[in-house]
Amino acid sequence: MDYDKRLMLFSGRANPELAAKIGAKLGVGLGPITLKTFRNGEVYCRYEESIRGADVFLIQPICGNPATGISTNDALMELLVMIDAAIGASAHRVIAVTPWYGYSRQDKKSAPREPISARLVARMIEAAGADRVLTMDLHAGQVQGFFNIPVDHMTALMMLTQHFEDMQLNDLVVVAPDAGRVKLNKKFASKIGAELAILDKERPAQQVAEIGYVIGDVRGKTAVLVDDMIDTAGTLKAAAQTVRDEGASRVFAAATHGVFSGDAYENLASAGFEKIVVTDTIPLRPGAPENIQVLSCSDLLTDSIRRIFTDDSVSEVFGGENQLF
Amino acid sequence: MDYDKRLMLFSGRANPELAAKIGAKLGVGLGPITLKTFRNGEVYCRYEESIRGADVFLIQPICGNPATGISTNDALMELLVMIDAAIGASAHRVIAVTPWYGYSRQDKKSAPREPISARLVARMIEAAGADRVLTMDLHAGQVQGFFNIPVDHMTALMMLTQHFEDMQLNDLVVVAPDAGRVKLNKKFASKIGAELAILDKERPAQQVAEIGYVIGDVRGKTAVLVDDMIDTAGTLKAAAQTVRDEGASRVFAAATHGVFSGDAYENLASAGFEKIVVTDTIPLRPGAPENIQVLSCSDLLTDSIRRIFTDDSVSEVFGGENQLF
Amino acid sequence: MDYDKRLMLFSGRANPELAAKIGAKLGVGLGPITLKTFRNGEVYCRYEESIRGADVFLIQPICGNPATGISTNDALMELLVMIDAAIGASAHRVIAVTPWYGYSRQDKKSAPREPISARLVARMIEAAGADRVLTMDLHAGQVQGFFNIPVDHMTALMMLTQHFEDMQLNDLVVVAPDAGRVKLNKKFASKIGAELAILDKERPAQQVAEIGYVIGDVRGKTAVLVDDMIDTAGTLKAAAQTVRDEGASRVFAAATHGVFSGDAYENLASAGFEKIVVTDTIPLRPGAPENIQVLSCSDLLTDSIRRIFTDDSVSEVFGGENQLF
Amino acid sequence: MDYDKRLMLFSGRANPELAAKIGAKLGVGLGPITLKTFRNGEVYCRYEESIRGADVFLIQPICGNPATGISTNDALMELLVMIDAAIGASAHRVIAVTPWYGYSRQDKKSAPREPISARLVARMIEAAGADRVLTMDLHAGQVQGFFNIPVDHMTALMMLTQHFEDMQLNDLVVVAPDAGRVKLNKKFASKIGAELAILDKERPAQQVAEIGYVIGDVRGKTAVLVDDMIDTAGTLKAAAQTVRDEGASRVFAAATHGVFSGDAYENLASAGFEKIVVTDTIPLRPGAPENIQVLSCSDLLTDSIRRIFTDDSVSEVFGGENQLF
Amino acid sequence: MDYDKRLMLFSGRANPELAAKIGAKLGVGLGPITLKTFRNGEVYCRYEESIRGADVFLIQPICGNPATGISTNDALMELLVMIDAAIGASAHRVIAVTPWYGYSRQDKKSAPREPISARLVARMIEAAGADRVLTMDLHAGQVQGFFNIPVDHMTALMMLTQHFEDMQLNDLVVVAPDAGRVKLNKKFASKIGAELAILDKERPAQQVAEIGYVIGDVRGKTAVLVDDMIDTAGTLKAAAQTVRDEGASRVFAAATHGVFSGDAYENLASAGFEKIVVTDTIPLRPGAPENIQVLSCSDLLTDSIRRIFTDDSVSEVFGGENQLF
Amino acid sequence: MDYDKRLMLFSGRANPELAAKIGAKLGVGLGPITLKTFRNGEVYCRYEESIRGADVFLIQPICGNPATGISTNDALMELLVMIDAAIGASAHRVIAVTPWYGYSRQDKKSAPREPISARLVARMIEAAGADRVLTMDLHAGQVQGFFNIPVDHMTALMMLTQHFEDMQLNDLVVVAPDAGRVKLNKKFASKIGAELAILDKERPAQQVAEIGYVIGDVRGKTAVLVDDMIDTAGTLKAAAQTVRDEGASRVFAAATHGVFSGDAYENLASAGFEKIVVTDTIPLRPGAPENIQVLSCSDLLTDSIRRIFTDDSVSEVFGGENQLF
Repeated sequence: MDYDKRLMLFSGRANPELAAKIGAKLGVGLGPITLKTFRNGEVYCRYEESIRGADVFLIQPICGNPATGISTNDALMELLVMIDAAIGASAHRVIAVTPWYGYSRQDKKSAPREPISARLVARMIEAAGADRVLTMDLHAGQVQGFFNIPVDHMTALMMLTQHFEDMQLNDLVVVAPDAGRVKLNKKFASKIGAELAILDKERPAQQVAEIGYVIGDVRGKTAVLVDDMIDTAGTLKAAAQTVRDEGASRVFAAATHGVFSGDAYENLASAGFEKIVVTDTIPLRPGAPENIQVLSCSDLLTDSIRRIFTDDSVSEVFGGENQLF
Repeated sequence: MDYDKRLMLFSGRANPELAAKIGAKLGVGLGPITLKTFRNGEVYCRYEESIRGADVFLIQPICGNPATGISTNDALMELLVMIDAAIGASAHRVIAVTPWYGYSRQDKKSAPREPISARLVARMIEAAGADRVLTMDLHAGQVQGFFNIPVDHMTALMMLTQHFEDMQLNDLVVVAPDAGRVKLNKKFASKIGAELAILDKERPAQQVAEIGYVIGDVRGKTAVLVDDMIDTAGTLKAAAQTVRDEGASRVFAAATHGVFSGDAYENLASAGFEKIVVTDTIPLRPGAPENIQVLSCSDLLTDSIRRIFTDDSVSEVFGGENQLF
Repeated sequence: MDYDKRLMLFSGRANPELAAKIGAKLGVGLGPITLKTFRNGEVYCRYEESIRGADVFLIQPICGNPATGISTNDALMELLVMIDAAIGASAHRVIAVTPWYGYSRQDKKSAPREPISARLVARMIEAAGADRVLTMDLHAGQVQGFFNIPVDHMTALMMLTQHFEDMQLNDLVVVAPDAGRVKLNKKFASKIGAELAILDKERPAQQVAEIGYVIGDVRGKTAVLVDDMIDTAGTLKAAAQTVRDEGASRVFAAATHGVFSGDAYENLASAGFEKIVVTDTIPLRPGAPENIQVLSCSDLLTDSIRRIFTDDSVSEVFGGENQLF
Repeated sequence: MDYDKRLMLFSGRANPELAAKIGAKLGVGLGPITLKTFRNGEVYCRYEESIRGADVFLIQPICGNPATGISTNDALMELLVMIDAAIGASAHRVIAVTPWYGYSRQDKKSAPREPISARLVARMIEAAGADRVLTMDLHAGQVQGFFNIPVDHMTALMMLTQHFEDMQLNDLVVVAPDAGRVKLNKKFASKIGAELAILDKERPAQQVAEIGYVIGDVRGKTAVLVDDMIDTAGTLKAAAQTVRDEGASRVFAAATHGVFSGDAYENLASAGFEKIVVTDTIPLRPGAPENIQVLSCSDLLTDSIRRIFTDDSVSEVFGGENQLF
Repeated sequence: MDYDKRLMLFSGRANPELAAKIGAKLGVGLGPITLKTFRNGEVYCRYEESIRGADVFLIQPICGNPATGISTNDALMELLVMIDAAIGASAHRVIAVTPWYGYSRQDKKSAPREPISARLVARMIEAAGADRVLTMDLHAGQVQGFFNIPVDHMTALMMLTQHFEDMQLNDLVVVAPDAGRVKLNKKFASKIGAELAILDKERPAQQVAEIGYVIGDVRGKTAVLVDDMIDTAGTLKAAAQTVRDEGASRVFAAATHGVFSGDAYENLASAGFEKIVVTDTIPLRPGAPENIQVLSCSDLLTDSIRRIFTDDSVSEVFGGENQLF
Repeated sequence: MDYDKRLMLFSGRANPELAAKIGAKLGVGLGPITLKTFRNGEVYCRYEESIRGADVFLIQPICGNPATGISTNDALMELLVMIDAAIGASAHRVIAVTPWYGYSRQDKKSAPREPISARLVARMIEAAGADRVLTMDLHAGQVQGFFNIPVDHMTALMMLTQHFEDMQLNDLVVVAPDAGRVKLNKKFASKIGAELAILDKERPAQQVAEIGYVIGDVRGKTAVLVDDMIDTAGTLKAAAQTVRDEGASRVFAAATHGVFSGDAYENLASAGFEKIVVTDTIPLRPGAPENIQVLSCSDLLTDSIRRIFTDDSVSEVFGGENQLF
C-alpha cells in the first residue's frame, strides 16, 4: 500500500510523545510543522511542507502539557488553527485525533444557565473545518451526536480488562465509584468475570467528594474501581477508603484517561491503591506516584488511523464493542 | 398580561387531550387547524386563521395515538409540517412542545453502523424551522446538545416523588431496574428518603430482558422501581419478579413516560405491581390495567409555556433541578 | 469495471422487489441490512457489513408497503435513518434513490398557511446527510430546485410512449385530464403522433372530482389520458366517463406512478379503461384490477445508478429529454 | 399606529416610480440613499440616515431600467448590496420587495447541464441576509419553495379580471397561449365567466415561436390571451394571428408583468390587439404602442407592506387566493 | 428609559475593571455570574440569575489577565462558553463586546499553510451563537467582513488625537513606524495638523525588528509614533531610536491597544519616549513604566452599548469616521 | 499525466482571450459551452458535453468586456450560473478562476451603512456552490478570509519586478501613490533594489484625486509608481505630475490589474508616463494608448491550475511569497 504519498500525521503540543509513537508505527513519522505561542499568548502554526491533497491526521488531545508549556485551552486553540491552516492549504481530508476530548464532562446542563461546552467544542472543531474526528472513551457516548461530521469512537476497555486478566487476581469485585458509572463498571466486571458493587454517595458541590457506603459485597475481596477518567482523584481516594473500610483486601483503579489535575498525585499516593492503570491519551506530568501504570493506546490509534485512511472497517478492531460509554 | 393577542396554541393529533388541558389552563384554548392524512399516507395541515406575528406553541409528543389514527412517524411528520407551515405563515416564534421525545433512546451508537436517530430528529425539527423546543425528561440529558436552538427541559420527578410522599409508605427502597438508570433512582431515593438498590442483569439482545439479582437489600421492604419510560414493560416485569423473589413486601413503579407498547399491558397486569405511576405525556391506549395511575403534567407545561412566552425564568419552576436525566 | 468494491446497494422496506431487480441487474445484489420497527413505532436500521468508503445507493420510494408493514411516513423516516447511519458509518457518498418522491404534490402553497411539504422532505433528506438524489418524474420539475445537493431526474415517458407505440393503435388522441397537466400530455401526444384534447373541470375541494367537458375532439377516437401519477383515481374515473360520453371509442390511461390509494382499485375497475399502464416505482398492493399493467423502471434506474457511480453522463440515457415535468 | 418610527422604505434604481407611489401611499416616503454605478461597472449604495432597528423594505424588481441606466443584473446586484448594507447597519428586518422576480423562468432544468437560476437568485438573496421576500405572480408557485425565508406571494389576477369585467365585453373566450399556462387561463376564465380554449404549438428553440391551431372554439368571440408575463411578445403575436385566423372578432391580452424586451413593442403594435393590459411591476420603456395599458399594483403592494409591518394577515387581501401560479 | 429590565451586562475575567466602569456608567452594574477554571484547565460559567429575554452584553477583550489568572486562550474560550450559556438560557440578543480582538494580526496568510486565525475566531464567536459584536480599532477593517453577524466597529482615534491636541505641542510630525501603518498615521497627522514621515525598515523574521531610516523630515521636531497596538514594543523602541538619531527633539507614542507582552515594559522604559498613550481595552499588567498613560475607553463603549440597546445610531458617535483601520 | 480525462476548462465572456491561452497551454482547450444574454438582460449557460466527475475550472474575471457585450455585473452573474450549472451537472470540483476579483475595493466599511461588497461576492460564489477560488493580487489579502472555501492567491509581483529588472534602469525610486499602498511599493522596491518614496495626498471624495507632495527624494531619478490596479487613473495622473514636479527624470507605472475605466486612457495618454505595465487579468478595451504594455499572466495561471488539479504545491510557484497584498 502506498500511503506515504497521501497520509500525513502532525502533532500539536499536547501529547507529542503519543504522536511520535503513532508516527513510528504507521511508518510515516510526524510531518514538519512550526508551532509557537506568541508572547501575548496567541498560538500559531505553519505546515512546513505541502499537504495539498493529503489525508491529514492531527494528533491533539485537548489537555495541557507542562513539558511543552501549553494549557488545555491553548491545546484546543492550537488544534483549531491547525485545522484551519490544513483546510486553507488544501488538504484532502482533515481528521482531528483527540484521544482525550476535553470539556467532555460538560455534556449537558446540570444546572440552569450553564454552557454545554462539549457541544461547543464540537461546533468549534466543525467550524474550523475538520472532516472527521477520532476519539476515545467519551464521558458519554452521546457526545458523538454533537457532531455532524463522522466520529470514530475507540475504547481502551479491552486493553484495560486484558491487563487485569493478565494479572490473574482472585475474588474480584468491580466497584462503581459513582451512580453514573455503574454501566461501565458492569461491563468491566462482565469482561473479567467479576462481581459488581456500587458506592453510594453525595457530591455536595462540584469536585468536592463525599462518600458513604458500598451497595453490594466487597469484604475480603480484591476491588477494582473503574472510571472513564481520573481527574483530581478526590472522589477516588475517598472511594478507596470506603472500600477498604468495608473490608476489601486489595484495591486497584482503572481508567482510560489520567487527567491527574490539582492534588491528584497526592491523593493517589496516599489512597492505598496497589496500582492505578491508565492509558497515555494524556501525557503524564512529572512527579507521578509509582503506583500509576500507563499503558499505551498507540497501537489502537495507529490501527484506527490506518483503517480510516484505507477505508477499512474501524469497528472491526473492537468486534463492534467500541460504543461503551 | 395581554397574551391572548400573541400566544397561540395548536395541537397535532398525537395528544389532543393534553393539549386541550394546557389550552384551558392558559386561557387561550386551542387554535383552529385542519389536520388530515391523505389516503396515500401523507399528512397535511393548514392553520385556519392568521398566526402572523404570534408565538406559536405546537403540542405534539412524538408518539402514535390510536384514537386519532396516527403512528409515531405520522406524529413526527405532522409536527414538522406544522412547523414548516407556521414559519411560512410568518409566526414570530415557533416552539415545538414535545413532552415525549420519540427516538430518544437512539441517542448514540450502541453498535457500529447504527443511526443516531435522536440527533436526526433534532436536525429535522431545526431544518423545519422551529425556534425552540420544550420537552420533558429526556432519556439522556445530552440530547439537549443535539439541538442548536434553545431547549427547555422539564422534569416530572418532583411530581412523582411528591405523589409517593403523599402515600406515606414505610421502609422504602428505590430499586434501579438497570445499570444505566442508577443515577435517576439515586435522585428519586434521596427525594423520598429511601434506600437504594440495583438490579444486575444482562440484556442479551434489544428488547429482550434477562434479570439476575439485587445488589443491596430489599427484604421486607416496599420497593419502587423508577425509570424515565416504560415501553413494553418486559424488563420491568422481570424486575418486579426478582425484587419480590428477594423478599420485597410491596412493589411499585414510577416513570415519566408511559409508552406501553406491545405487550406492555399484559406484562404490567401480571407483574404484581401495586401501582404504576406515569404522567400523561403520551396518551393512554384503551385497555390499560387498573393499577396504572396517570398524573397530568399539564400544570407543569402550562406554567413553562407561560414563562417562555413572557420571558420569565423557567428553571425557577424546579428550583433549578430540571436537568435530571 | 471493478465496482463490486465500492458500489453498494441497500433497500428499505418500501419497494424491495424493485431494489432486488436493480441489484440483480447491477450484479451487486442487495447489501445486508437490519431494518425493523420497534413496538412503539420507531424505525431502526443497521448495516450488517462495513460500508466505509463505498458509494451507497439507498432504494426507497417514499410510499407505504402493506407487504412489509410500513406506511408512507415510516418509509420516509426509514430512508432518513438509513442515510444518517450511512454517513456515520463513513460511506463515501450516499445517494437517496426515491423513484417516487412522496409529498411531491405539496410543492407550493395552494392556500394560505399550508406547508410546502415537498421542500420540507428535501430539507430533511439533506439534513440527514445525503450527497445526491435520484428520482423520477416529479410532479413539478421545480422540486429539483428545493435541493441544494445534485438531483438526477429520470423520466419514464419514453418507456410509456414506446409501450403505446408498440400497441399500434389508430386514431389516437391524448387527453389531458387536468389544466395543470396539459404540457405533459402535449409532450406525450407529440411522441406518439397523436392529437391533443383537454378536459375542463372544477375541483371544488381537495380530492373531490368534478369534470365537465372536453376541449378538442375525441369522437370515435382512441383516447389516452396521461398523468404523472394516479392516486385515488376519482378524477381519472370521471375523466374516462366524460371522454366516453363525448364519443371516444376506446380509453386508456398512462402514468409513471401508480399510487392507487383509497378506492383507486374500485374506481379503475369500473371506469371502463381498456388498460392502465404504470411503472413499478411504487409496489402494487394486492387486489389490483386486471386492466392495470405495470412496466418495470428497473432498467432505467440500473443504468442511471451505474452512470452515477462511474461518472458517465446520465442525461444521455434520455437524449437530454429527462426534464419533462 | 406609529409606524413612522420603524418602517422605512428604500428604492433601488429598477423602478423608482413604483416605489415612490408606495411611499406616498404608506405616508412614509422613500428613505434617503445614495446609489451609484462606478465607472468600472460596480454598483454601490449607502443609507444616508440611521436604519438601526427599523423594518427596512427594499423595492427592487429584478429588471433593467433605461431611465436610470441599470441593467437586469445591475438591478439584482444593487438589491443584494442594499440588503448587505442594511444588515450591516443593524436593520431589524430586511424585506426584499421584488414585484417582478427576474430569472423566474429558469426555475428548473429544461435541458441537461443548465443552471436553475431562479433558485440561485433565491440563495443569493438569502446569502445577502434578507429576512423576507414580497413578490408577485411568480412564473411558477414552486419558486417560493426555493427560499428558506418566508415569502409573501401576491397576485394581480383579481386586478386584471376586474379590469376586464369593468369593460363589459360579450362572448368572451380566454385562450391559453401555451400548454404550460392553461391553469392560469382556466382561473382567469372562471373569474370573468368566460369559456376556455388552448393554443397548441411547438416552440422549436428558445424565444422562437411557432403556433398551430386552437383547441376549443373562438369563432366570433372576443378572445383574451392571458400570461404571467409578456417578454419579446413573439409568441403572443403569433397567438393573436392564430386566434384571429380561427375567427375571433376581437383580441385582448393580459399579463401581470410587462417585460417587453427586444422587439416586443414592434410585435405588439402589429399584432392586432385591441388592448394589452399589464401592471407596473416593471417600468415601461419609452416608445410603447398606445394599445398597452398599465394598471398600478401599488395599492396591492402598499397594503401588503403595511400588513407585513403590523403582522396582519396578508392572504386576507386576496381572500386566500394569492397562490395562483 | 427603562432598560434595567432588559439590558444586562456581564464581564468575563479578561478586563473586569473596564467592565465595572461601563456597568457603573450604564447604571446597571455587572450581572451576577460564576466564572471558574477547573484544575484541569477547563473554564466554566453560570449566570446566577435569569437572563431570559434580555439583551446580554458580554465584556471580554481577548487577552490574558494576570490579576484573574487567565491567559489569552482562556479568555477566548471563556467568552465562547458565556455566549453558549447565554443562548441556552434564552437571552434575547447576545452581544460580544471585545474592545481588543485577539488574533487580529493573523487576518490573512502572510506565508503558505498558515491559518487565518482572525477569521477562525470570528467563526467561533458565530458558532457559539453571538448575535452581534462590538469591537474597537481592528488591526485591519476587513476583519469585520469575517463575520456574518453585524459588527459595530469603534475607534479611539479621536480620543487619542484630542489628548495630543490638549497637550499643545509644537512642530509636530507623525511618524509611521511601519509601511503598513502609513494610512493610520496619515489620518492621525491630519487630525492634529502635523506633518507625516515614514520609517523604512525590514522585519527579517516575525517579532524581530530591524529599522533603517526616516523618509521625510523629523529634525528638531516633536515626533509621535502611532500604531493600532503596542505588543512587545521591540519595533517601537528601535523606531524611537531611529527618530531620535535623525534629530527629533521629543518622541511620543500613541496606540489604542496596549498589549505590552514579553519585554514591552523594559523596551518602553529604555526607549526614551516622553509619553506612551494607550487606552484600557487591555488591562495593564503591574510594573508598567511611568511614561505609559492609559485613557479609558469606557465612555465610548458605554455610549455604544446604550445605542445598540436602544437602536440609536452608533456611527453618529464618531461622525461616521469609525472605519479607520 | 492523464488529465484530459478529468480536467475541464470553460470560459465565460469576461476574458475569453486569457482563457484560450490557458487552455492552449494546458493542452485541453476550452470546453464547449453555450453562453447568452436574453433580450431582457438575464444571462444563461449550458455545458454542451458531460462534465460529470470532472474538475471544472471556470475562467471569469469579474469585469465587463465590450467585445462580448457583457458588463461587470453580467460577468459576475454569468460566473454564478456557470457554477450552479456545473454543480447540478455533477462536476467533481468546481473552481472559480477570477484573476481579477471585482468589488475587491469594497472590502470594509469606509463609511457607515455601506455594504461590504467584496464579502458579498464571496458569499455568492460560495452559495452558488464553488469548491475553490483561484485569484490574483487581491486589493487586500484579508479578502481571502471572506471565503470559507480554500482560496489560492497568486501574485504578478515577480513578473512585474522581473520586467523592470530586465529594463536595466538606473537610479530607481519606487513611489507609493497612496498611503494605503506603501507596503506593496516597499516590497516592489526591495525586489528591484530601489529606494522608496511616498506621495502624500487627500482624496476629498471617492474617485476624485488630490495630490500634494512627495515624502522622500525623487529628484533626477527614475520613478516607478506601483499599485495593485489602475482604474480611472485620475489619481495616477496627478501622482505622475507631482513626481515630475519634484524633479523625477523618468516616470513609469506598474500594476497587476488594468481596469482602465472612465477616462483612464485619456488620463494615461496625457500623464507623461514612459510606460505603464499591467497584466491581462482584464481584457484591454480598444483604443489604449501606446504606452500601455500588457504582460500575460497565463503562464502563472496555467501552472497554478495544473498544480491544483494534481494536488501539487501552489505556493512553490512563488517561493511562498504570494501573499503580498
